[in-house]
Amino acid sequence: MKTSVTELFKIEYPIVSGGMVWCSGWRLASAVSAAGGLGLIGAGSMHPETLAEHIAKTRAALAESRRPFGVNVPLFYPEIERAIQLLIDERVPIVFTSGGNPALYTARLKEAGITVAHVVASARFARKAEAAGVDAVVAEGFEAGGHNGRDEITTMALIPQVREATGLPLLAAGGIATGRGMLAAMALGADGVQMGTRFALSAESSAHEAFKNRCIALNEGDTMLCLKKLSPVRLVKNEFYARVAEAEARGAEADELRELLGARRSKRGIFEGDLAEGELEIGQVASLVRRVEPAGEIVQNIVDEFREATREVRQWEI
Amino acid sequence: MKTSVTELFKIEYPIVSGGMVWCSGWRLASAVSAAGGLGLIGAGSMHPETLAEHIAKTRAALAESRRPFGVNVPLFYPEIERAIQLLIDERVPIVFTSGGNPALYTARLKEAGITVAHVVASARFARKAEAAGVDAVVAEGFEAGGHNGRDEITTMALIPQVREATGLPLLAAGGIATGRGMLAAMALGADGVQMGTRFALSAESSAHEAFKNRCIALNEGDTMLCLKKLSPVRLVKNEFYARVAEAEARGAEADELRELLGARRSKRGIFEGDLAEGELEIGQVASLVRRVEPAGEIVQNIVDEFREATREVRQWEI
Repeated sequence: MKTSVTELFKIEYPIVSGGMVWCSGWRLASAVSAAGGLGLIGAGSMHPETLAEHIAKTRAALAESRRPFGVNVPLFYPEIERAIQLLIDERVPIVFTSGGNPALYTARLKEAGITVAHVVASARFARKAEAAGVDAVVAEGFEAGGHNGRDEITTMALIPQVREATGLPLLAAGGIATGRGMLAAMALGADGVQMGTRFALSAESSAHEAFKNRCIALNEGDTMLCLKKLSPVRLVKNEFYARVAEAEARGAEADELRELLGARRSKRGIFEGDLAEGELEIGQVASLVRRVEPAGEIVQNIVDEFREATREVRQWEI
Repeated sequence: MKTSVTELFKIEYPIVSGGMVWCSGWRLASAVSAAGGLGLIGAGSMHPETLAEHIAKTRAALAESRRPFGVNVPLFYPEIERAIQLLIDERVPIVFTSGGNPALYTARLKEAGITVAHVVASARFARKAEAAGVDAVVAEGFEAGGHNGRDEITTMALIPQVREATGLPLLAAGGIATGRGMLAAMALGADGVQMGTRFALSAESSAHEAFKNRCIALNEGDTMLCLKKLSPVRLVKNEFYARVAEAEARGAEADELRELLGARRSKRGIFEGDLAEGELEIGQVASLVRRVEPAGEIVQNIVDEFREATREVRQWEI
């Protein structure tokens, strides 16, 4: 396949696995890249030392195929300066930044020869990212798992507006877990897709098995965007969520919610498998995912479905 | 064009204009039907006498072309019994029901020879509608304007799941205002689309000019789903919305919200053009609509865009 995204990242298929906390280690990143997509290491849940180790292992796993990989780093990362320097020192080929101001580090990364993409939740921020000099934009809709924008714009409404706002290579994210979803996103103007949920539930994801098994059994409506007075996040409706929902319904302020949230809840839920008291971050499309599969098979399956759906479009009587 | 939706309704294009309160009178319904789509009269804001008048005028306007039209009736409509009897007595060819239990009236309407579609916001309700005997299902996502489901499932996540749940003709709604959006919805498994926002802002919509002009100037993020403790509704962020948001943030209960809402606010906003104190119901995609155009031109424009986008898909190097 050939789109501006495959050209930019020098990959076979315009399919990126999101850099998800507690899911996206070297195993997942290298499996996706080896299959022809772009695998991202999620730095958000790693100290710089751990990140360095995952970069080295991804590199080793991809040494023979010489395929590229990337790192996603949230710009609110506590050790951000060290992380940025590490990415430069390690000559990581591709960096996705998210959750902050792209003007802060884009120039430095670009000067080091790194290809930079930035994740946005609105056309306004897509324009800001372009002004900051990024090479590509990921537009992520309301249906996505984990942290999310404040404007609650869905992928269906978001992609055409970001497409209007910028001519940069555009990846659609949020609500996409199948080849049909990929076709829909590309019909709306995207040049490729970033998928989180389906890869978070893959065999190579470092999420706990209990988390994966809970998520592949979810029904529609089993996740909800919450904690909007802190930072909006989409979670599975579990016991912890129920306490958040109760507090929010009676108007709890940010301080109370911060205390309720406490520390390390996403690790507890996703990595340690505490299904009751952890933050279980996953997207609305989890209800379309019914099996834990190897990430490489997922990439191939998405491509096959995409081609099949495209063939169908070619046969429509219009 | 030929899909299960065009076959069922005997129309040229699988494009339905939603039955929207204070927007969908005989002028809009007949303009959409005359252009080859399916125009719906929105009974929700009409007494039965007014509805009868709009049915007669739609019929007169379509007499020569002999094209079909439909009526959308919300099942929580206060005079629902009289409305259902009217639809039967008038031999309205097509009825879309929404916002209630499809088991209540579907059999009676079908016995009278009427084609029945029901609007749902989840796959679970799509199965219920099919069990009730409807001929088609409209699946409407979180990004849609006006009243909305409680599960907040977006069109991107909803359509594939409703497609899995039922083999009935399926119309996608919510977030669709262009031919590219129509292609995306059909790639996800829909057989056609129901569009509200773009037709609400058409020349033939009976909405107030001030409402239309406000809505075509909206940016992304200028609408929000609110009043979730009553019945979730997507509104433009105006002065009235600000008071609702303030009350909700401090945990106001349903009673207080009901009092704040009062009566006739949607009429005040949409029909009378009170931009500050009215309920301004419109979808997220309003920010993609930049002009008030004749509804017939909109239908043709959507079809042209859809065909152009489909031609592009045919040229992709995959």
